Amino acid sequence: MAEKNNPFHPRDENYAHKVRQSFAKQQAMKSIGIEIVELEAGHIVLGMAFTKDFTQQHGFIHGGVIATALDSACGYAALSLMEAEAAVLTVEFKTSFLAPAKGDHFVIKGNVVKPGRSLTFSEAHAFAIVGDAEKLIASMSATLMSVRDRSDVSE
Amino acid sequence: MAEKNNPFHPRDENYAHKVRQSFAKQQAMKSIGIEIVELEAGHIVLGMAFTKDFTQQHGFIHGGVIATALDSACGYAALSLMEAEAAVLTVEFKTSFLAPAKGDHFVIKGNVVKPGRSLTFSEAHAFAIVGDAEKLIASMSATLMSVRDRSDVSE
Amino acid sequence: MAEKNNPFHPRDENYAHKVRQSFAKQQAMKSIGIEIVELEAGHIVLGMAFTKDFTQQHGFIHGGVIATALDSACGYAALSLMEAEAAVLTVEFKTSFLAPAKGDHFVIKGNVVKPGRSLTFSEAHAFAIVGDAEKLIASMSATLMSVRDRSDVSE
Amino acid sequence: MAEKNNPFHPRDENYAHKVRQSFAKQQAMKSIGIEIVELEAGHIVLGMAFTKDFTQQHGFIHGGVIATALDSACGYAALSLMEAEAAVLTVEFKTSFLAPAKGDHFVIKGNVVKPGRSLTFSEAHAFAIVGDAEKLIASMSATLMSVRDRSDVSE
Repeated sequence: MAEKNNPFHPRDENYAHKVRQSFAKQQAMKSIGIEIVELEAGHIVLGMAFTKDFTQQHGFIHGGVIATALDSACGYAALSLMEAEAAVLTVEFKTSFLAPAKGDHFVIKGNVVKPGRSLTFSEAHAFAIVGDAEKLIASMSATLMSVRDRSDVSE
Repeated sequence: MAEKNNPFHPRDENYAHKVRQSFAKQQAMKSIGIEIVELEAGHIVLGMAFTKDFTQQHGFIHGGVIATALDSACGYAALSLMEAEAAVLTVEFKTSFLAPAKGDHFVIKGNVVKPGRSLTFSEAHAFAIVGDAEKLIASMSATLMSVRDRSDVSE
Repeated sequence: MAEKNNPFHPRDENYAHKVRQSFAKQQAMKSIGIEIVELEAGHIVLGMAFTKDFTQQHGFIHGGVIATALDSACGYAALSLMEAEAAVLTVEFKTSFLAPAKGDHFVIKGNVVKPGRSLTFSEAHAFAIVGDAEKLIASMSATLMSVRDRSDVSE
Repeated sequence: MAEKNNPFHPRDENYAHKVRQSFAKQQAMKSIGIEIVELEAGHIVLGMAFTKDFTQQHGFIHGGVIATALDSACGYAALSLMEAEAAVLTVEFKTSFLAPAKGDHFVIKGNVVKPGRSLTFSEAHAFAIVGDAEKLIASMSATLMSVRDRSDVSE
């Protein structure tokens, strides 16, 4: 995706470095096998392979694990538009499960809906890839908070 | 907790066996390290130890992983009140993150708010345990669906 | 909007008549002053004028009143794709308030995300109109249920 | 309910006056017919009579109107714990509809789950009263924001 049509102007020109560095510190992403595929200001795409380790009782990926990827997508889309010194925390999210998480791998797309100095609204969509087809399986709407000057929370 | 004050009457008298068997098939629970601590009709308690493998960038447990435990708590509380032949799927959930997931271990309590033949409403609360103190860190409200006669979904 | 690009195929060819008739029975729409502006299968647009009668303490339209319009938009988008004999009930919705509801009038757009025989997922967006500008002020994601054979619930 | 068991300590000792004054400015409460029944720090009870004016197509109170009452309950429970100079805005809410809103009148109970300087988490429950029986019909979880120094938002 070309940056030129991007409606957002990052407040931190080094946002990409900051997001990737923070993402790399999320052990949960490493353990589950979630990676950044694409990143620009206010927008991120994550990829995740199917793995039996994170299935639920019917053999699909657990809804909570899909939510984990959606949450990271919402959070990092938000962080990309925050000030250099801000860290991001999730306030709340809602996830709708539209179809079972069956697929060879999954693509998760996160976008900022409305950035703010204190609160940012993001949304994300998870797609299952089966062959050439991309099927929408879950969506999330989330509220994220900018945090400054807290010793236990920094990116 | 004594069953005698339990307001719910299970439709399947073997619900405990069914829930434990289904839970044992959730590879995600095993991989993350989540276990059943307590179970009765319409109510479940899960336990989870802190593990660095599922942290986010600030060293707390990832919100999505807390949501994974909350989702299982909501789902299995719901399944415990369903008919013997029914399987359970999550329709949607919302999670509020009240405090960072810092603690030695975590307790997740799930309860049915309203059971139904087709849809069940559950809620769950996650607590961080630090020494003797139990601190509420997250809450979930969820809608669960009873599924019958679907070859890919059975408990 | 032309129906020709519509991805949805209504199960009831008289859906427009059914939706309009049901909407006309919602006294709440009349009392608040909400009308259907546009309707096709899986999609609806509602209009609402600003009225001091439904404001909150700061003089904006009350968030719950915006949610009322969003809920009707989600519900009727869903009903338009249901079978002729089905009625619609809201299972749950989540609303994010992106900006205060200030404006001369408001436009609410509802769309089905995924239709189903039993459950339908819809989303809706509310816009404030100030002069020529349309500003996104709130969004909703909702789960709707098809109801059949219930004497107290029919369209 | 006696204040003596109340876990919350209001930051503004005149909170009751402030809440009642702000509530009185909500034209929406007047138009729908919602009143304060009980108020203490972090807790509020509202009452609402059944009125045909705010029904949906099946003759029950419209879900959005129930959400309007729940939102006010969440917001004023939150405001009661905020500083004297703070105003309250709703960030988001989720409502689950557990049963149709049939009844002679309705009671809505709002409680703070976690107060904070910037964000407060509240929840509320709506009950239908039929004769002597109180039936839970809907629940809400909400995030509220403290607002200071904004000319268009003050209590």
